[in-house]
Amino acid sequence: MKVLLVHAHPEPASFCTALRDTAVDALSQAGHEVTVSDLYRERFNPVAGPDDFGSRRNPDYLVYSLEQRNGWQSRTIAPDIAREAERVLESDLLILNFPIFWFSVPAIMKGWIDRVFLSGAFFGGKRIYDRAELTGKKALVTATLGGRDHMFGPDAVHGEINGMLRHLLQGTLGYCGFQVLQPFYAYHVPYISDEDRRQWLADYRSHLGSVETLPQIPMPTLDNFDDVLRPLTRPA
Amino acid sequence: MKVLLVHAHPEPASFCTALRDTAVDALSQAGHEVTVSDLYRERFNPVAGPDDFGSRRNPDYLVYSLEQRNGWQSRTIAPDIAREAERVLESDLLILNFPIFWFSVPAIMKGWIDRVFLSGAFFGGKRIYDRAELTGKKALVTATLGGRDHMFGPDAVHGEINGMLRHLLQGTLGYCGFQVLQPFYAYHVPYISDEDRRQWLADYRSHLGSVETLPQIPMPTLDNFDDVLRPLTRPA
Repeated sequence: MKVLLVHAHPEPASFCTALRDTAVDALSQAGHEVTVSDLYRERFNPVAGPDDFGSRRNPDYLVYSLEQRNGWQSRTIAPDIAREAERVLESDLLILNFPIFWFSVPAIMKGWIDRVFLSGAFFGGKRIYDRAELTGKKALVTATLGGRDHMFGPDAVHGEINGMLRHLLQGTLGYCGFQVLQPFYAYHVPYISDEDRRQWLADYRSHLGSVETLPQIPMPTLDNFDDVLRPLTRPA
Repeated sequence: MKVLLVHAHPEPASFCTALRDTAVDALSQAGHEVTVSDLYRERFNPVAGPDDFGSRRNPDYLVYSLEQRNGWQSRTIAPDIAREAERVLESDLLILNFPIFWFSVPAIMKGWIDRVFLSGAFFGGKRIYDRAELTGKKALVTATLGGRDHMFGPDAVHGEINGMLRHLLQGTLGYCGFQVLQPFYAYHVPYISDEDRRQWLADYRSHLGSVETLPQIPMPTLDNFDDVLRPLTRPA
């Protein structure tokens, strides 16, 4: 498999970085080809804006998604966006590796999504979920957090963690057609012992060993919706 | 009331900007004092990193939240962060005004949250939800999106929109103690007539007219959890 691992952590010596290195090592040893986009190291620009387009369909009024389509088709989109989009399109597996900030990705990774997940190339108006352009690819979220695992679950204080991250798992990755694998969450990371951290790394290596057969998070199928995406009524 | 309106849109002439201006006008006319943080215009830096701290508790290893606490207490945190955090602390109502990008805020606003929502000043280890520092303040999410309203709901293709935004409504605003008001969502914005857009603005003015009595989204109460935030078991 071709793997694109997108990593974002402000501390180069972080445990999250050790997860990145574990993934590169484990997947390479298993014969996969891994490319890393290290957003902090590359000082990736996360702010979607008018400078992302070398030529504009409408120079007077910016509708970002329409300019994405135009910029991709006319090959005038910013070079950093084109490079990252091509990396996604060439990969079979996308890994997002990050510390959870506010139950989501850090802003630098949010901007990677805002700028690189191109309307027209990754999805279209009604080409979403199982009709989107990226169907057939897999995506894995690997995230560290300070909270403990008992803080997540149906009766827990924050509710289900996959529910907190639904905007990412379903609304972003599933929306573009990815098969979204069960995420790998490492809990309570700043407060645990080095031995516990080594155990998390071993667990992650094992998780990655079964990456081709991991369970997937269920996604909507457009078979259940009409041509303006209203739910189909079915015979009782 | 003192109101802080945080606005982020890459197009200065956008409908989202008209929502901002409507809020400033309606709230000022009602006697409230409104401050606007316009993140694109101010070129707000959204990337949380080591440069956010003038002096470090630990210069060799960055744990962002620990340095936030230290930087706030010692008044050595970056001036843009200090200014924005003080604006939040001085306000009674926070309005986040943005176009929905990937079922969340644009990266520049995510970075405003990552950098400004300070550990120690806005919340602490177990000072979250109804024990957090910002209890008593209200928050309103005002967002534009391309999707139609029938795409959201219990049986709709994307599920509930407040569920998609749970990381923001509960995981960010509720977490810090805000009373989170029912959001104002303007749907299908790029595709509707100018007359329909004027109607959205009139509806928003009316929504803001009842801002002190709008329904709130339910949040967890720590009364139901023990001192490590495990659910309390109750007699049957």
